[in-house]
Amino acid sequence: MKLLIINPNTSTAMTTGIAAAARQVAAADTRIVAVQPSFGPLSIEGHFDETIAAAGVAEQVRLAAPHDAVVIACFGDPGLDAAREATRAPVLGIAEAAFHAASFVATGFSVVTTMTRTCVIAEHLLHRYGFERRCRGVHGTDIPVLALEDGGAGCVDQIEAAAREALSRDRSGAIVLGCAGMAALCAELTRRLGVPVIDGVAAAVKFAEGLAALGLGTSQHGDYAPPLPKTYAGWAAPLGW
Amino acid sequence: MKLLIINPNTSTAMTTGIAAAARQVAAADTRIVAVQPSFGPLSIEGHFDETIAAAGVAEQVRLAAPHDAVVIACFGDPGLDAAREATRAPVLGIAEAAFHAASFVATGFSVVTTMTRTCVIAEHLLHRYGFERRCRGVHGTDIPVLALEDGGAGCVDQIEAAAREALSRDRSGAIVLGCAGMAALCAELTRRLGVPVIDGVAAAVKFAEGLAALGLGTSQHGDYAPPLPKTYAGWAAPLGW
Amino acid sequence: MKLLIINPNTSTAMTTGIAAAARQVAAADTRIVAVQPSFGPLSIEGHFDETIAAAGVAEQVRLAAPHDAVVIACFGDPGLDAAREATRAPVLGIAEAAFHAASFVATGFSVVTTMTRTCVIAEHLLHRYGFERRCRGVHGTDIPVLALEDGGAGCVDQIEAAAREALSRDRSGAIVLGCAGMAALCAELTRRLGVPVIDGVAAAVKFAEGLAALGLGTSQHGDYAPPLPKTYAGWAAPLGW
Amino acid sequence: MKLLIINPNTSTAMTTGIAAAARQVAAADTRIVAVQPSFGPLSIEGHFDETIAAAGVAEQVRLAAPHDAVVIACFGDPGLDAAREATRAPVLGIAEAAFHAASFVATGFSVVTTMTRTCVIAEHLLHRYGFERRCRGVHGTDIPVLALEDGGAGCVDQIEAAAREALSRDRSGAIVLGCAGMAALCAELTRRLGVPVIDGVAAAVKFAEGLAALGLGTSQHGDYAPPLPKTYAGWAAPLGW
Amino acid sequence: MKLLIINPNTSTAMTTGIAAAARQVAAADTRIVAVQPSFGPLSIEGHFDETIAAAGVAEQVRLAAPHDAVVIACFGDPGLDAAREATRAPVLGIAEAAFHAASFVATGFSVVTTMTRTCVIAEHLLHRYGFERRCRGVHGTDIPVLALEDGGAGCVDQIEAAAREALSRDRSGAIVLGCAGMAALCAELTRRLGVPVIDGVAAAVKFAEGLAALGLGTSQHGDYAPPLPKTYAGWAAPLGW
Amino acid sequence: MKLLIINPNTSTAMTTGIAAAARQVAAADTRIVAVQPSFGPLSIEGHFDETIAAAGVAEQVRLAAPHDAVVIACFGDPGLDAAREATRAPVLGIAEAAFHAASFVATGFSVVTTMTRTCVIAEHLLHRYGFERRCRGVHGTDIPVLALEDGGAGCVDQIEAAAREALSRDRSGAIVLGCAGMAALCAELTRRLGVPVIDGVAAAVKFAEGLAALGLGTSQHGDYAPPLPKTYAGWAAPLGW
Repeated sequence: MKLLIINPNTSTAMTTGIAAAARQVAAADTRIVAVQPSFGPLSIEGHFDETIAAAGVAEQVRLAAPHDAVVIACFGDPGLDAAREATRAPVLGIAEAAFHAASFVATGFSVVTTMTRTCVIAEHLLHRYGFERRCRGVHGTDIPVLALEDGGAGCVDQIEAAAREALSRDRSGAIVLGCAGMAALCAELTRRLGVPVIDGVAAAVKFAEGLAALGLGTSQHGDYAPPLPKTYAGWAAPLGW
Repeated sequence: MKLLIINPNTSTAMTTGIAAAARQVAAADTRIVAVQPSFGPLSIEGHFDETIAAAGVAEQVRLAAPHDAVVIACFGDPGLDAAREATRAPVLGIAEAAFHAASFVATGFSVVTTMTRTCVIAEHLLHRYGFERRCRGVHGTDIPVLALEDGGAGCVDQIEAAAREALSRDRSGAIVLGCAGMAALCAELTRRLGVPVIDGVAAAVKFAEGLAALGLGTSQHGDYAPPLPKTYAGWAAPLGW
Repeated sequence: MKLLIINPNTSTAMTTGIAAAARQVAAADTRIVAVQPSFGPLSIEGHFDETIAAAGVAEQVRLAAPHDAVVIACFGDPGLDAAREATRAPVLGIAEAAFHAASFVATGFSVVTTMTRTCVIAEHLLHRYGFERRCRGVHGTDIPVLALEDGGAGCVDQIEAAAREALSRDRSGAIVLGCAGMAALCAELTRRLGVPVIDGVAAAVKFAEGLAALGLGTSQHGDYAPPLPKTYAGWAAPLGW
Repeated sequence: MKLLIINPNTSTAMTTGIAAAARQVAAADTRIVAVQPSFGPLSIEGHFDETIAAAGVAEQVRLAAPHDAVVIACFGDPGLDAAREATRAPVLGIAEAAFHAASFVATGFSVVTTMTRTCVIAEHLLHRYGFERRCRGVHGTDIPVLALEDGGAGCVDQIEAAAREALSRDRSGAIVLGCAGMAALCAELTRRLGVPVIDGVAAAVKFAEGLAALGLGTSQHGDYAPPLPKTYAGWAAPLGW
Repeated sequence: MKLLIINPNTSTAMTTGIAAAARQVAAADTRIVAVQPSFGPLSIEGHFDETIAAAGVAEQVRLAAPHDAVVIACFGDPGLDAAREATRAPVLGIAEAAFHAASFVATGFSVVTTMTRTCVIAEHLLHRYGFERRCRGVHGTDIPVLALEDGGAGCVDQIEAAAREALSRDRSGAIVLGCAGMAALCAELTRRLGVPVIDGVAAAVKFAEGLAALGLGTSQHGDYAPPLPKTYAGWAAPLGW
Repeated sequence: MKLLIINPNTSTAMTTGIAAAARQVAAADTRIVAVQPSFGPLSIEGHFDETIAAAGVAEQVRLAAPHDAVVIACFGDPGLDAAREATRAPVLGIAEAAFHAASFVATGFSVVTTMTRTCVIAEHLLHRYGFERRCRGVHGTDIPVLALEDGGAGCVDQIEAAAREALSRDRSGAIVLGCAGMAALCAELTRRLGVPVIDGVAAAVKFAEGLAALGLGTSQHGDYAPPLPKTYAGWAAPLGW
């Protein structure tokens, strides 16, 4: 199968990193194709960034070559509903996938993310998806997204400390990493913390493979039916229906 | 005061209509400036349309001349959080404003909107804002958004019928019109139905005037603080921070 | 327009203060008429006080001269539903108005109020209105309501301190003042805190003006329809329908 | 023990009827003392009626002779919090008691009440108490409260029909009677319907006896602590603290 | 009446203790019959223990001699739905009964229980029953269930300390004891804490007496109707229908 | 990997059928081992059946040979928490897995199940897991579980009809089959309905494979930590810890 993984920001280094993380867990017969929008922010650390990035995700799904599944690799799941409307394939956001995975292995989990100001984005997603009771806390570390690329030991230590405190204070049994850029740290954190640590990129890849294997794609009935025919203006003209 | 009203779609006719509806209710000293994105769908009737339109709203707020308040004139409130991050002025979505207004005048209200497939968008907003108990039903009429521009009597009759059934079945006391394009029908529907009928454009204009008069703008503290400095690529380069 | 503002307690000094606060923000053509019940507690600091005060609000609306809008100026919104049943005009409670205003300018807000024992009243209202997720904390200062009349610097300092801690602990972006008696401190607290500080009296006046300007009044359909004809006994005889 | 049962309206016939219903189920050593306010509506069929009646309940508890438990015998539980603040004895509302009883004998119940316009009052209580998921429907019959006094066969038939439809449509296992005036019909309806039919007066009496037997009274700690000292004006002067 | 009280674990000492606690509060004409399953864990301190114990409760109700009411005396309410399906009598769990009792005497209560790992069981019950807003906190003391049998002063002190902190931090007005084994400590804790302290065994006995006196039993209509005829295999053969 | 699939009832035919359904979707290197309890009901159609079956699931996990993942193949997910406590492997219930899968492909789904009396079990699970907003309706067909074994065309037609009505009335985009015995009908129903039809057995197998591939197992920290040492009496003695 061909799995389209979209990095919603325009950092090529992060696209490469996400592709590597995805390939590490993908099945032998899964081909990972990683793309990024032709426009938008270098990283996503707030509502404005995310809104532009969501349009970037929509662009990439709209213009994509045929594929069997789609993963949106930013923890805010930008453009998820738009992407689902634009393809018959199953589409997963990494926040969504991580929350689902965590709820399979613990009665309560905590999220450890980057900028504190983005915690509210995670909280809105948790509520939207129905995980507001399963998630027992969302915690910012104020590590900038792009600082994760260097993957310095400092980041791991800081995330480990935040995770330890979350496990204890929130009475949680698992940790969800709140940024695609943390994928590379997942194994080390798992080793250190001794609890399930969930990277959404990995979770999304496996769930996407599973859905595709079952022939389950986005419903074409109801609000995810293909968009109505519509003229689009300006740079978005090629995205019209 | 100067009130920036953004029509998130690219129908100039609708922008003109929204501006007219806004001016009809604006205070004498309120100057209405109506704009539309430089790109995107001619009307918004689904998730994909809305995601592109949200980026259009973000563009317009980002590039806007100084203003005292902002209204986003599409019932899905696209780009609301992004717009708030991008300005110190108060920003209101018309769905949000209509829900608030309805909850001041009835213990329960019903929404009558255009395409049935967009009902879920209204439902998500209701839940996001906390009106899921106040709203007793969301009803599609499957009138296309652009058909509202002609404002034929057929539309009014159809909306009236849907509203009457909603009032009775949902045990509601007020009707919220679920599309900016219905603004011109509000007076006639009020007359026919004998209950409060709420047009979000009008409600948003008055609430925006009220907040601005009190000196209340979007909080600069927390997740609505100005975006972090960031390079934006492609057509979005001028939107970077 | 004529705006009837009801102070639900029987402190004439507070009625005067509330009227002054209302006039300060009212539009040029808004006439503020401030009244108080003919009976009941001197201040409202618990359930019993509030229940008697609610009847006082009902009395005042029932016996009121014609008016275009009503504001109930106590943070527990006593008698709100009764008042709505008793008039065609729009009726707003100040807690309600403050919660709505706060949710327009921040994704999360905190309430700072007087007696800790009244926090539960605010919490019940938040839940009733649907703001239980928007409000991130309700905090008592244990300043007696009547001590606010003197408006000593001590009060401002104490409220400022409580607000600062709330902003930080609750991750909030705005502060709602939980007592009509705090109206006079709003400007100073806004200056000190640097975030939107919302006084419900001011918010209610502006929202009431807005609704009245749109011709939106309490629905006469459903549970807010005028009361059924009914004999009232005792002192309440003149309130019968 | 001495159980004070307060009929919140001023219909002496209904006070007598409620007392009779209470005595029918009370334990041998329970003395029922039934009272009604010195003022207020003859029956309670809306928000305004209820707000005045709540003050009447507060009056009766405040001025009551010593007692071991209190029951408020109107389905809107008017004045419940005020009454709890005013006594150390346990206080139960009949709606509350009925909801609790129903949830002990069925996973879902339906409420059949009098005027449709009062359904929203029951819905607010259900939500306030946490029974919004247990209750699967609230249904008005539009039988006026005072018509129940005559207890004609017509009333029983009408309530039976509404209950049958509720059991089937709501997939419920029990019926809660939504008016103190229906107490006398409970046995007959139980016989006809073959499911638990719950009269709140009976349920409240038994729960009150149980709590009193255990020495459990209203908490004096927190928001139910005795009211703060306070001057009351007008007719309410004797109610001050 | 005959009240069957089931200790879901297989500690005979605890069965005896529970019976004693029940008899202490039972009415003169209530006969307490205490039983325990023929199999299962000696105490219940986790999900696995509870799942086996639930089957034990089902066994005991299925094979029980005629009775007028049933109480399940473990704070997780194991087997509650099964028991209800298996008898026409009313069935109460002690957690359920305690939550109901607490919500009659305080606007908020806290639970103090044994092992921290069982807190999530209480939280799930609170949510299932609708008390998630009434309960302001669930606190583990990590006292093993069987250590309560000795009833050493140490236990009381430890529970008192946890309760005091809960009252203050949670802003609660009452304490629910989260284990049947704490029944004997209830009076002493009430004396020390000065707030209502609720033992579920006592509460369940009184509520069961009340329901039985009213002739209210488990609904035979809907999901609590008697089980469908069914062959059971293995040791469970005698439990078949 | 070795996947232990537990049929919680004691129908060998159904165990065989479930194993076949699992093998049909399992990866090449997944070995399916299907077991059933040594005791309990032949099918599960109510609370009592389910409570005994849950103990059967606990028995099978407790006594199981080493395995890499566990699936509980009854739509009530009986014994899920117990099973998780008893193994380090990931454990999935088929209802849970189906709900998760459905929420990846539609904004709203409907459940079509067997006996109407079991709808409440599904509703409780939906609420427990957080899917109460995603699921737009649970519908019984009153087809007995064992009738599904014959798989007659009548069953398919009946389920198709119920599903069609659910899609339309509930405004749903996907159908969840509410019984392990419906697994064999999934392909045919998918073909007929043209929307995603989800069989929980298949979904659970793929999600279990995915979790196991990522090395994600049940958290050993918190309430899913291994049970405390404990003596078990009677037939359950071998299950003690």
